[in-house]
Amino acid sequence: MNKGVKIVTIGGGSSYTPELMEGFIKRYEELPIREIWLVDIEDGKEKLEIVGKMAQRMWDASPYDVKIHLTLDRQKALKDADFVTTQFRVGLLEARIKDERIPAYYGMLGQETNGAGGMFKAFRTIPVILDIVEDMKRLCPDAWLVNFTNPSGMVTEAVIRYGKWDKVVGLCNVPVMAMMVEPELLGVKTEDLIYKFAGLNHFHWHKVADKHGKDVTLEIINKMYEGDAGLPTNIHDIPFYKEQLKQMNMIPCGYHRYYYREEEMLAYALEEYKTIGTRAQQVKQTETELFDLYRDPHLDHKPEQLAKRGGAHYSDAACETIASIHANKNTHIVVSTKNNGAVPDLPSDCVVEVSAYLGAQGARAIAFGKLPAAERGWLQVMKNMELVTIEAAVTGNYGTALQAFTINPMVRSGDTARKILDELLLAHKKYLPQFKESIERLEKEKVQIKDELSRQLSE
Amino acid sequence: MNKGVKIVTIGGGSSYTPELMEGFIKRYEELPIREIWLVDIEDGKEKLEIVGKMAQRMWDASPYDVKIHLTLDRQKALKDADFVTTQFRVGLLEARIKDERIPAYYGMLGQETNGAGGMFKAFRTIPVILDIVEDMKRLCPDAWLVNFTNPSGMVTEAVIRYGKWDKVVGLCNVPVMAMMVEPELLGVKTEDLIYKFAGLNHFHWHKVADKHGKDVTLEIINKMYEGDAGLPTNIHDIPFYKEQLKQMNMIPCGYHRYYYREEEMLAYALEEYKTIGTRAQQVKQTETELFDLYRDPHLDHKPEQLAKRGGAHYSDAACETIASIHANKNTHIVVSTKNNGAVPDLPSDCVVEVSAYLGAQGARAIAFGKLPAAERGWLQVMKNMELVTIEAAVTGNYGTALQAFTINPMVRSGDTARKILDELLLAHKKYLPQFKESIERLEKEKVQIKDELSRQLSE
Amino acid sequence: MNKGVKIVTIGGGSSYTPELMEGFIKRYEELPIREIWLVDIEDGKEKLEIVGKMAQRMWDASPYDVKIHLTLDRQKALKDADFVTTQFRVGLLEARIKDERIPAYYGMLGQETNGAGGMFKAFRTIPVILDIVEDMKRLCPDAWLVNFTNPSGMVTEAVIRYGKWDKVVGLCNVPVMAMMVEPELLGVKTEDLIYKFAGLNHFHWHKVADKHGKDVTLEIINKMYEGDAGLPTNIHDIPFYKEQLKQMNMIPCGYHRYYYREEEMLAYALEEYKTIGTRAQQVKQTETELFDLYRDPHLDHKPEQLAKRGGAHYSDAACETIASIHANKNTHIVVSTKNNGAVPDLPSDCVVEVSAYLGAQGARAIAFGKLPAAERGWLQVMKNMELVTIEAAVTGNYGTALQAFTINPMVRSGDTARKILDELLLAHKKYLPQFKESIERLEKEKVQIKDELSRQLSE
Amino acid sequence: MNKGVKIVTIGGGSSYTPELMEGFIKRYEELPIREIWLVDIEDGKEKLEIVGKMAQRMWDASPYDVKIHLTLDRQKALKDADFVTTQFRVGLLEARIKDERIPAYYGMLGQETNGAGGMFKAFRTIPVILDIVEDMKRLCPDAWLVNFTNPSGMVTEAVIRYGKWDKVVGLCNVPVMAMMVEPELLGVKTEDLIYKFAGLNHFHWHKVADKHGKDVTLEIINKMYEGDAGLPTNIHDIPFYKEQLKQMNMIPCGYHRYYYREEEMLAYALEEYKTIGTRAQQVKQTETELFDLYRDPHLDHKPEQLAKRGGAHYSDAACETIASIHANKNTHIVVSTKNNGAVPDLPSDCVVEVSAYLGAQGARAIAFGKLPAAERGWLQVMKNMELVTIEAAVTGNYGTALQAFTINPMVRSGDTARKILDELLLAHKKYLPQFKESIERLEKEKVQIKDELSRQLSE
Repeated sequence: MNKGVKIVTIGGGSSYTPELMEGFIKRYEELPIREIWLVDIEDGKEKLEIVGKMAQRMWDASPYDVKIHLTLDRQKALKDADFVTTQFRVGLLEARIKDERIPAYYGMLGQETNGAGGMFKAFRTIPVILDIVEDMKRLCPDAWLVNFTNPSGMVTEAVIRYGKWDKVVGLCNVPVMAMMVEPELLGVKTEDLIYKFAGLNHFHWHKVADKHGKDVTLEIINKMYEGDAGLPTNIHDIPFYKEQLKQMNMIPCGYHRYYYREEEMLAYALEEYKTIGTRAQQVKQTETELFDLYRDPHLDHKPEQLAKRGGAHYSDAACETIASIHANKNTHIVVSTKNNGAVPDLPSDCVVEVSAYLGAQGARAIAFGKLPAAERGWLQVMKNMELVTIEAAVTGNYGTALQAFTINPMVRSGDTARKILDELLLAHKKYLPQFKESIERLEKEKVQIKDELSRQLSE
Repeated sequence: MNKGVKIVTIGGGSSYTPELMEGFIKRYEELPIREIWLVDIEDGKEKLEIVGKMAQRMWDASPYDVKIHLTLDRQKALKDADFVTTQFRVGLLEARIKDERIPAYYGMLGQETNGAGGMFKAFRTIPVILDIVEDMKRLCPDAWLVNFTNPSGMVTEAVIRYGKWDKVVGLCNVPVMAMMVEPELLGVKTEDLIYKFAGLNHFHWHKVADKHGKDVTLEIINKMYEGDAGLPTNIHDIPFYKEQLKQMNMIPCGYHRYYYREEEMLAYALEEYKTIGTRAQQVKQTETELFDLYRDPHLDHKPEQLAKRGGAHYSDAACETIASIHANKNTHIVVSTKNNGAVPDLPSDCVVEVSAYLGAQGARAIAFGKLPAAERGWLQVMKNMELVTIEAAVTGNYGTALQAFTINPMVRSGDTARKILDELLLAHKKYLPQFKESIERLEKEKVQIKDELSRQLSE
Repeated sequence: MNKGVKIVTIGGGSSYTPELMEGFIKRYEELPIREIWLVDIEDGKEKLEIVGKMAQRMWDASPYDVKIHLTLDRQKALKDADFVTTQFRVGLLEARIKDERIPAYYGMLGQETNGAGGMFKAFRTIPVILDIVEDMKRLCPDAWLVNFTNPSGMVTEAVIRYGKWDKVVGLCNVPVMAMMVEPELLGVKTEDLIYKFAGLNHFHWHKVADKHGKDVTLEIINKMYEGDAGLPTNIHDIPFYKEQLKQMNMIPCGYHRYYYREEEMLAYALEEYKTIGTRAQQVKQTETELFDLYRDPHLDHKPEQLAKRGGAHYSDAACETIASIHANKNTHIVVSTKNNGAVPDLPSDCVVEVSAYLGAQGARAIAFGKLPAAERGWLQVMKNMELVTIEAAVTGNYGTALQAFTINPMVRSGDTARKILDELLLAHKKYLPQFKESIERLEKEKVQIKDELSRQLSE
Repeated sequence: MNKGVKIVTIGGGSSYTPELMEGFIKRYEELPIREIWLVDIEDGKEKLEIVGKMAQRMWDASPYDVKIHLTLDRQKALKDADFVTTQFRVGLLEARIKDERIPAYYGMLGQETNGAGGMFKAFRTIPVILDIVEDMKRLCPDAWLVNFTNPSGMVTEAVIRYGKWDKVVGLCNVPVMAMMVEPELLGVKTEDLIYKFAGLNHFHWHKVADKHGKDVTLEIINKMYEGDAGLPTNIHDIPFYKEQLKQMNMIPCGYHRYYYREEEMLAYALEEYKTIGTRAQQVKQTETELFDLYRDPHLDHKPEQLAKRGGAHYSDAACETIASIHANKNTHIVVSTKNNGAVPDLPSDCVVEVSAYLGAQGARAIAFGKLPAAERGWLQVMKNMELVTIEAAVTGNYGTALQAFTINPMVRSGDTARKILDELLLAHKKYLPQFKESIERLEKEKVQIKDELSRQLSE
């Protein structure tokens, strides 16, 4: 390893890449990088070049000599990699817009991670990540895969369960933000609190203690009702019911609003759909602005605007994860990893998102113990929703996809849900080869995307 | 036991009682009854007398000499009982009307067994059944409790978990009806099919084989799409998606429609609410008609009209259960009983509804084995919903009740759900002493039942 | 099936065969057999012909027209079979003598089912049964495999786990005998008691209730200390400690003596070894006598002497099992079958020996629930011993075999145990192709069988 | 906490105390101790004074001002304690001598932690530790209990399960020594290796990786056969079978020799019994020598001889544990703590010994995942042996004690084992009030300790 570390970033043309560079530069002493390969697909070529030049400028402005390689040839890039990060979006933002618009058109939440949209993101992404894993087996069998492509938990589960690849860590910025905001509520520093997270990606709870071991979870809950609750900026600020939080004596993640305040979150999403466009369209706008900045040949550091994005701390978590593994730092990070019993309410061999110490062997998950009945029930239905979704993504079976839609608490089952399923299959046809047979059947049955909706989707 | 069996029926003034009598008369040879005590409360006195006389007439018309005792003194009745059956309704039909009207007013399913209504039925019923169990410990410690008060599964769970009383069997007519209708679909007799059920009360699946052991589940599924699906009459006939059933390769119970076709079931319930009144009101009408018949001093057999009711086969299942226990018959009956591993996806000590052989030791549940992911997820969330509901029923904790409402898939979480919770608490104040503190708080906070709704409830 | 049932018996030359015939003749009305194929190997040809003729005489003396086919061609026999029974012994009694003599020579229990001997029986038998299963997949894919080759539990586990064949039931006569002897202790009939067994083959416990549901387990335990304890004749009558049985409030099977009274069982076995030869040699003597009888062309019914054998009731259990499956009788039989949760202290997918109702779909195991700590611990170590033994049988890995020997509570670990392992490998070389590599290594290392022992083995 | 930490050591007269002092002095900066209370019983008064003065001299020779209090009044000492350490021996070394001599006399291993001796140590110790916990609930409800009284795992389990006290950590020096010796085998430092332990006290396995994450377990196994295997000095150096270790691909702890090489360990123990006295007598001799040294008023540092003792590193582990909790250091320490799923083959609520990070909230156990079949079986039987032993210790039930003896793999069941059980009950009569009834029965039945053995015990 004394030759320096080789990093490969699939989906390297992402607007997040400069943030990743910043994280690597900051950690260079413990993570001496030799070369970084940014990989993207033909459709992302332009963005890859813009962001690639920007990335090289950032390194050139640093004291370190690191070469950025830009390529559309994934296999060339993967050869002998030490770390592979994945932040790609199959179908780009256009796909996400469909994921959100189609459900919203029918009055339902698309929700790009755990809702109907998230399931379709899984359907598009899982076959690709499994291909990447196959490449890695041949080209860089000792590398670690650090995934931040959403739905991060399902993607990680697919890599382990179907890809049979254990050297993987799934990341999410939601816990990072909780650990940034909550200490402020108490007027202490992050390092003064002891965190213990358990659950699934975008569906976890945590408990907090102070540095003397005293549980301060309830204290934080109380403070949350006095001010800001530490949510990522892409979740509308609808408060949890205080009575509910007090009963659970744990802090849910922001995405729990979709489950604990479903009515209001739906109303908000539909309002947003009507007025300012879906969340995806907002993101697209932000992206356009970011790329305009990146084009500036004088810009050699991460611009302020990047922080506006919901995923703003992914990259820091990713860099810290990689550095922790490389330098065996044993940092506490909340990751998606194999359960191994840490969450005993779920099978030992599935993926969970938990507090873990990250070192040269990857994540050492902390055993959380059993959850109370309400949280256990939620957790079990969500994990099984994930498993059914992944199975549908791998098999392309229509009945399985319908089962996944039906069990998902964010989807109201019935004909509308089925209509959404069918239209999403048609809309994403290009990226869903595994569903070929069902899509052809739907085309024959003349399932049609409504005019108004078609117009919107082609905007 | 040679002195004959003593049976006590709590809620004996129910319109179901004549059907129970018919079942006992039919089985007298194997279940030689000495005396039957029908117990009811002051408010049910008139009905008790009507139905009690009718019951005595039925026995008098039979070859057997059995005495019907009518009493409002439960403890007197319980003394030395061999079997206690429970079919009472705390708050009578008026309470059920509130259980259904209040949610429906706000556009939500009340659903008297697993929905918001069912949870309130549990809140009202569980304290009473636990009192009965305490009486039984003193007065008839060797008796069996055969419960058909809904929500039957939760009531049975409460009896075992909180009442610490294991000699209990919970009954439901839903499996009975499936086992009556499905053989007809195949043109065979019930005894020609082999059934295996697993799940929870009003939330189970089953598999069927023919007498040569060949699985015919799929064959029945196919037949279901050619005709009637064997539903109890109180579930509107919305078909399951065939693709979904084929994928699960099991047959869900009729109540699964509330989960698999939520949209349509809600629409139907709201339509019904607007036009012909809630289901409870229909039941009330049927009841009035039945009692008019029972009053006829010449009627000495079960009238035809009783069969119209959804619960029509409860009583036969109940009589067969009692006879099987008494005569150690080992009949296959689907009952709510302690899991003991039969459904390994749920804890060994909770109550499940499964195929069992009923004999002198009660239910011997058949080990079903693990369920596929989708059904496992549903089952786990529903069991935990039940556990949280029961905990709320026992503790009267508002936060716990809110958690129960939130996790219930039939309740859309948010302010409307909370409003429904609050109004149901107020509406059932008389029967919810355990929630006294919260109800007083709500009264102070001036949570008010909307005018129109108040009018309806007082109809 | 109207053409009558075809039965194939692998190891048909066994002295047990006439008892099997008797059982089939007795049940002909419910199990209308068309033809029976007795299959054996070249070495068993002579016995096959003797016993085959005897079998045909038995049928000829019955009112039924059934043809006995004798063959050494297993595949010919298996074609279109309805039931395949397996009662073969790889290496015949000579192998069993080695299984018992070699450990005994070194002062250890061989014990042909769960001890060192039983493990080697598993090593020899499992590859053969897996071959049979492969034949069945091709030649009679709808047939049931009814195994009574010991170690019956491990063989059944191997068939399901490695053979991926679920239509199998493993049988044992030990529970049968308990259910014959215990009612006598109480002065009642078998049908007046309710039995519930759980555990593993030759390692189970049971509880008993009378026909009114009253638990009489302790009553039977008390009676056991007044007289005979219902042991099979091949287990020396050393009593259990009464205090221990009262604490567990269950009745262990006779083989538990090897674990609960290890010292005395070992002493007895070593004494037997010195004086009258091992158990296997006794069996051989009995066999010789039996075959002398079978040769008598006038004998056309099962001779009395067969009852002397420990396995005397296997055949009745086997015939009843087959009849129950064929006629969907739902008889209570204790069988080795897939757990499916019936014994929740063990994984849901492993094989257990439990009370089950046998019908057209095979065994419907009764959920027993969790065991107390002491029995749970024993059960778990024994099940894992079985799993490691089976893994060694399948892989031929020496380290795995050593692990199996080490974890087996009947083997005292250390150099003597290893010596026994090595000598058994050499002694059974012919039947252990999977261990070829290790055996060759041992031969090179000149592991030698002690002179005196060699002499004995070649007797 | 700014007033400094108050430490209470129960069994403070132990010869280990100076080592404990050394550890505290070394860590004073992060663990600013105010006062240390050494508590002992009347019989230990002399030793308490000797070691207490020695301890004060050690602090006086340090730069820190810490006061040592000596007392026989436990309650006085416990008042407002921050940490309570327990290193007492009920019955002192004399009891241990009986624990080892009585079994050895009958040809069996006494083994003071997991064998018959260890079970009696549990019988004597558990009632006392539960008393201490009751005192702590009243006098220092926020204190941590750091136990190193053996059998450390069972004592910790009893504290949590029966004492309902969760703020407890059980310690053992065996993992510490492995982590000292194994790096030497590889020529690296401890901090260059990544350890993961799982199992029970004196019955665990571990895996090791280098600082790049590469598994080096097998490499260490190979090295172990070239030299010293990192055993504590009280375990005779009998090697494991290399084939077995390679198959498990984990490193067992030294005590596994009692299970994997039972024959040789027994032979060695019996030899030792005959020639140089039991291990306990050796310890007694070492103790006498140590106290002679401690008497020297010029000695103010830990003497070299202390290192000879098997438990030599307990104290360092104890001091590091306390410092880690106090200063929230998050050090990796192997401790007995609540499972919470870390070892998913055992119930979530039992105590396991695992790798954990120790901080202000105590132990955060690392999820190890499922073990292979052989190790799983061992682990499960040992955990249940512990649970039955603890139940016997709490209830004083003779049948339960007999069950515990029977399930223990180190005890050969039968009359000799029962004789050992009976004689140990009589020999420890003074310390076993819970077994009063059984002991009186034994006395009436004239169970007598053999003359020769009596003579030895009274030596």
